[in-house]
Amino acid sequence: MKDENYFAGSIRGGRDDAALYHQIVELLGNYGEVLTEHVADADLGVLGQDIGDEKIHDRDLGWLKESDCLVAEVTTPSLGVGYEIGKATEWGKPVLCLYRPVAGRSLSAMIAGSGSVTLREFQSTAELSEIFGNYFQSK
Amino acid sequence: MKDENYFAGSIRGGRDDAALYHQIVELLGNYGEVLTEHVADADLGVLGQDIGDEKIHDRDLGWLKESDCLVAEVTTPSLGVGYEIGKATEWGKPVLCLYRPVAGRSLSAMIAGSGSVTLREFQSTAELSEIFGNYFQSK
Repeated sequence: MKDENYFAGSIRGGRDDAALYHQIVELLGNYGEVLTEHVADADLGVLGQDIGDEKIHDRDLGWLKESDCLVAEVTTPSLGVGYEIGKATEWGKPVLCLYRPVAGRSLSAMIAGSGSVTLREFQSTAELSEIFGNYFQSK
Repeated sequence: MKDENYFAGSIRGGRDDAALYHQIVELLGNYGEVLTEHVADADLGVLGQDIGDEKIHDRDLGWLKESDCLVAEVTTPSLGVGYEIGKATEWGKPVLCLYRPVAGRSLSAMIAGSGSVTLREFQSTAELSEIFGNYFQSK
């Protein structure tokens, strides 16, 4: 069966990286179905979807639970992304975090110091093919 | 035995609310020991503590696990705060989230839509005494 990967990126925390998320979701498509393509939608604003928060929460956690792997872009601080990483690590899911180092800031110690998370730093999307290739081969 | 409460606020996500965290930790002191007073330290910058990320992660999760309750200020988006809320809800801990609504933004649907989280909105710290009084009485 085809793998299912859950992609997490900031929505209400800020949409600065929406275009990047789009490229990540495209690349991730080479490794299975991406359950959360809407996160990469440039038309999705900072207020997110308007279907009710409980429905979003329960739908997204349902997808996360059925997924084979969580891939999270963690450069923009986000409560929802952190929450999903916390859940996924508790559930024993493989978690790959992608982080672009920015001068004067640091990644949360809860992510950088978690033994249950694979952390890969990158500067440009050109590096992501190799990161994904290595990760999904060895996962 | 005295209750132990874990306080979570943004560190590396941004220290805009550090003074507010200080007031929250003071008020929380009326309801038991606060395990994470350092989060409210105005001298703690956006880079956080310099003791190694794994040590911070393991120490903080240890405190969270032994605590009776997680109180999180969720106005500033933060991966670490989200991660801790995700863990605490998995562990069946009571979670109280405090949120100051800001025009043009919304709280993450993962927090606002979680059935395992008690969410209280406030505008000024004057409201927190009543929020804590009611919460800790009924918890």
